[in-house]
Formats: sequence, C-alpha cells, structure tokens
Amino acid sequence: MPDVNFFTVAHAVFPTNDAAREAARALQDQLTKPPGSLGLLEALGIQLSAIAGVCPPPVPEPVTIAVFAGDHGVVASGVTPWPQEVTAQMVANFLSGGAAINAIARHVGAEVLVIDVGVATPVPGNTEGLIRRTVALGTQNLALVAAMTVEQAQRALEVGVEIAQRALNAGAAMLVTGDMGIGNTTPSAALIAAFTKRSSHEVTGRGTGINDETLALKKAVIEGALRRFPENAAPLEILAEVGGLEIAALAGFIVAGAAARVPVLIDGVIAVAAALVASALAPAVPSYLIAGHRSSEPGASAGLAHLGLTPVLDLSLRLGEGSGAALAIPLVQAAAKLMREMATFDSAGVSGKDDG
Amino acid sequence: MPDVNFFTVAHAVFPTNDAAREAARALQDQLTKPPGSLGLLEALGIQLSAIAGVCPPPVPEPVTIAVFAGDHGVVASGVTPWPQEVTAQMVANFLSGGAAINAIARHVGAEVLVIDVGVATPVPGNTEGLIRRTVALGTQNLALVAAMTVEQAQRALEVGVEIAQRALNAGAAMLVTGDMGIGNTTPSAALIAAFTKRSSHEVTGRGTGINDETLALKKAVIEGALRRFPENAAPLEILAEVGGLEIAALAGFIVAGAAARVPVLIDGVIAVAAALVASALAPAVPSYLIAGHRSSEPGASAGLAHLGLTPVLDLSLRLGEGSGAALAIPLVQAAAKLMREMATFDSAGVSGKDDG
Repeated sequence: MPDVNFFTVAHAVFPTNDAAREAARALQDQLTKPPGSLGLLEALGIQLSAIAGVCPPPVPEPVTIAVFAGDHGVVASGVTPWPQEVTAQMVANFLSGGAAINAIARHVGAEVLVIDVGVATPVPGNTEGLIRRTVALGTQNLALVAAMTVEQAQRALEVGVEIAQRALNAGAAMLVTGDMGIGNTTPSAALIAAFTKRSSHEVTGRGTGINDETLALKKAVIEGALRRFPENAAPLEILAEVGGLEIAALAGFIVAGAAARVPVLIDGVIAVAAALVASALAPAVPSYLIAGHRSSEPGASAGLAHLGLTPVLDLSLRLGEGSGAALAIPLVQAAAKLMREMATFDSAGVSGKDDG
Repeated sequence: MPDVNFFTVAHAVFPTNDAAREAARALQDQLTKPPGSLGLLEALGIQLSAIAGVCPPPVPEPVTIAVFAGDHGVVASGVTPWPQEVTAQMVANFLSGGAAINAIARHVGAEVLVIDVGVATPVPGNTEGLIRRTVALGTQNLALVAAMTVEQAQRALEVGVEIAQRALNAGAAMLVTGDMGIGNTTPSAALIAAFTKRSSHEVTGRGTGINDETLALKKAVIEGALRRFPENAAPLEILAEVGGLEIAALAGFIVAGAAARVPVLIDGVIAVAAALVASALAPAVPSYLIAGHRSSEPGASAGLAHLGLTPVLDLSLRLGEGSGAALAIPLVQAAAKLMREMATFDSAGVSGKDDG
C-alpha cells in the first residue's frame, strides 16, 4: 500500500490565488472581443489563473486520466441488470484500448491510467499496464452493512493520493477522473444524498439503464442505508458506510490534485459523489474543480449545485469511465490558450464599444 | 466574380443516406457501452454516417473555417454601440492571427479563410491572405430600404459557393461557418423572424451588448422592415430585403457543403439565420447541419428549433467569428472516432445487460 497519509495531504489544500484571479478578470476585458462574449470559457480561464497563481494561465497539458475500478456488494440486492463480471471485463477493455475512454483519450492526447482498487472477479486476458492496488475484493452490501471499514476507506483514499502524485511527478498539469464499477451509481446516490442533505428520491436515477421496479428498489436500499448513521456523522464514516472503493480512491485523487494546485476535471455522477467527499474532507477543494459535463443522473446536478460548479458539457452522457470529463479537455485548454494568444484592443488597433 | 450558379448547386442537395443511418444505429448498440449512454455523440455519429453514406463514418478532418465579413447600413440607425470600422479592424486581426477564432482554430488544427464580401471601410495594415470578393461596400440601411438587390444577394450566395468548393477541392472534409460584421445580429434577427414566422420581440437580443433603449429601437427597426414584404415572399427576396452580404455568402457556403455531402458545422445566430435561408432554398440542407453551440441570442434558439437541430455546446457564447462552432470540432470528430475505434461486446468479450 502507498506510503502517504491522506490527512496530511488534505491539510495542504489551500484557497486559490485572488490576485491572479483579479488580473485574469481584467485581462478578459482587454482581449479583442465584447466583454463576457466568451461566456463560460472566460470563467474557466479566470479559474485556471487563480489555480496556477499566474495570469495568463499555463495551458493545462499534458493531462492524465485515472480510471479507478471497484466492485460493489450491493449488486447482490439487484440494483443493476449488469453482471458484476462486467467490471473486470471492462478493465480488460480499457487495457486493450477498446473502450470509449481510450478512443477519447487518444483523440485529445491524454494518458489513461487504469487502477484496480477492488475488482471482485479476475481481470481476463493480458493485464499488462494494470495498476493493482486491491484494498478488498469489492465492498460489502451497503443494503445490509457498512460498505467498507473506515480503515479500508482511508486506504482507498491513499491509493488515490498515490496515483495523483505519480501522475503529477510524471508531468501532468491537469488530472481527470474516471471510474468503472458495476452498481456504482447506488453508492454515489447515497453519498450525494448524505452530503447534500437531500432525499434518495431526489438524487437516485436509472444509472446505465434500469426499469421502474429496480429504480424503486434502488431508492429503498439507499434510504435504508442512510438511516444507519446520524446526520452529523463524520465524512469518513459516511464514505465507509455507503461509499465504494473506487469512489474513495477518486476522492483521494481529487484532494491530491488540489493540494498540488492543479485543476481537477471531474466526470459524472460517480466523480461528483467523490468530489463531495473530497470537499467535506478538505473544504478548499471546489475551487480546483472543473465539472466536465452534466450527467443525466439527477444526483449529478444536485451535487454540482452543492459544489457551486457549472458543467462545461451537457451531452446527455451517462457512461462514466471519465468519458464526459475527457471530452471537455480541449475546451479547458482552449480557455487558457484564448487568454494567452488573443490580441488586446490596444495591440490590435481595434476600437472599443461606444458607451457614451 | 465566381463562375458558379447558385441554383444549380442548390438543386444538387439530396437527402442523406438512410441505409448508412440504419447501419450506424445498429453499430451504436454493439459498442462496449450501455445503449444510448454516449447521448448526443451517438446521434452525431449516426448523422455523420448518413451524410457520408458509410458506417462507421470517416473522421471529419481536415476542417476549414470560413469567416465571411460584411458591413450593414442599418448601423446608421443606431442598433449597435460599436463603430462600423471595427469590422475592418477585426478582419485585420483575423489576418494577423490575434482573434479568438485564430486561437481556437490553431488549437483544434483547423484552417481559417477570411473573405471580404462587403466590408465598408479599408482593412488596415497588411492584408495578405485576405480573399477579396466585395459585392458592395456594405448593405443599404434595412430600416429604410432593401439591404441588397436580388442580384447582389445572388452574387453573395455565389461567393459562398465558390469558397466552399475551394475548401473542398483542397481536401476539407468538414466546413465551419464564421462571420464578422458590426450590426449583423439585426439582419439575422429579421431573417429568423421571417423564416420562423415569429415576432421581432421573440427573436431579437442584445447582440454583443446593448442597453434597453437600443434593444427597443432594434426591435422596432426589424418590425418595420418585416412589414415591407408579404408573408409568402420568395426566400431570395427576403434575403435581399433584410439580410446581409456575409449572411448570404454563408448561406451559399452551407448549400455547397450539403451539395458535396460533407457535414457543415454552424456557429451562432448569424449562421442560424444563414442556415434558414439555405434550407429555404434547398430543403434537404438541415440533415447536413451540425449546430456547434447555442448562442445566448434568443433568435438562435428559435432558428435551431425550426431547423430541428440540437446544439453540441451551450457555453453562453455570443462572440461570432465561428468561435462556438470551432470549439465543437473536437467533439464532432470524437463522435466519429468512437464509432471507428471502440470494441464491440463480442470482440471485447464483455457480457451484455441481463434483461431477463
């Protein structure tokens, strides 16, 4: 297991830089475009400046996408129509480059790391390239008992920290979250309900495709699990009780990125759940986060609102793997390049708007 | 002036290929992802197949962005706070590579062509690279008289056809629309009102930034101009009466792209107005169109709904130049690559969903 302490890293997450943020705001109004006309890209460029502490911001490249994989005991309760072996089979697909995240990563020039934090069944075929950090062979069934011990949750957080630090040491300038785990929209919805103080009905969706009956069961499972701990339970307890190994690892990965002052581009509902955990454990985390897209899962929107994040894309994606975040990479990079490369009204000799 | 006849080209726009569309739909359900989980990207991949007549579709690259520039007599009526010279100054900025569209195009690996169809004032500085196709030194003031003669409108349409054919002959596999013209949200709103049969109040917005008083004036100007022709006026008459030279050129560019069976990625409200003109003149055009983004101008949404298009991005952009469309290029290319590169459930040995 990695030689890092999660809490040491969490305490190293500091607020982003106000002076750079203000300088970036001022620069946006000098570039040759009507003020505000680049919409969300202007906000992104300002955020990148505040994170890097410099204006204009550096272009966030190279980029590492970490796909954390884990299984979920709750599948025994029938919350998904997909067999559990699909987690291991998809890990094999990631390793051989045939999954959506591989095609997108090649397209945008990003690296993909695949980490087994708790896959329950053997990964078939050639497993070259797989980073094995098994904390447990899947979680316990959160419908009945705590998904993890607090110790397991902390070990999974530290796997995430280790992977982030490894990517950053290798030169990554932006981290992107990815995930794989059959059944993982159930723990994600439970975490989102717990951290946003919403009911399971508001935050539970159909995941990768379930019918009305299964949806009702899924909500009941989540509601029951939430009743096992008090409203004021500690974040790590909540994570252990209703979380998942790959979700905990993602939370650690996010915290370590923020501690290193790099932007962390998060994917859909699983990453949003992990971001809520990360933000509960290190409150300055949200200012380092960029939401890659708005997943069609209702919990994603609830979590994004709680985190104060406006997603870059809204393409009705509900795949996971980091696909939505990876698709947003070129847009985040464009936001930085626009600030670095555009002429100003003065330098280009372009007249300003007549407000007189 | 170009040696092309617009109407010959318009008659060569045929419907997209149903067999390829059906094959693409079937392929989407075999790829290693829950069916439908790639949302709008699946629809885009299917459309690209139907346009190319082959499944999986070719990746649309290389890409040419054509920025058509023209001035508008209606600025004399006070519909914009920007001086008319800004059109020429921004053309110079495009040529020297300092505008937003240049930074984005470099980022996504696309070529930018800059075409003067009717800039009223001299382009300052070094004009190397400028494609001069001046039809008139700006339009007449549509608040008072027809913006163009029908002949001028047709000549501008043919400039657009020529530029599209030039790009396609040079190897472009996708065309992207760009525009520059101080005051051009006024003719665009007028065209959108005319072609979607909506009132000026529904489709007129603040463009690059106007106050309440100017907005009221802009609506009154549009309403007055629309009263000069009957509801059943011919598309070319409507274009001449309330359009613009760069908008007409864009319409020709769009029609020529569709006639050549390549996807045409359109930008914001100006391009939407041009797409409505193009679709009125060649009814099969919309199936070749991809809407790059939803501009914050209200007319854009009205026009997109009329054309049946769902925009790729929604970033509150209102810059023009082709910026929103150019930002969508990597996503459109990703849609094709996903279909070409992803493994199928069979090939990857991934189990399917248990619907039993």
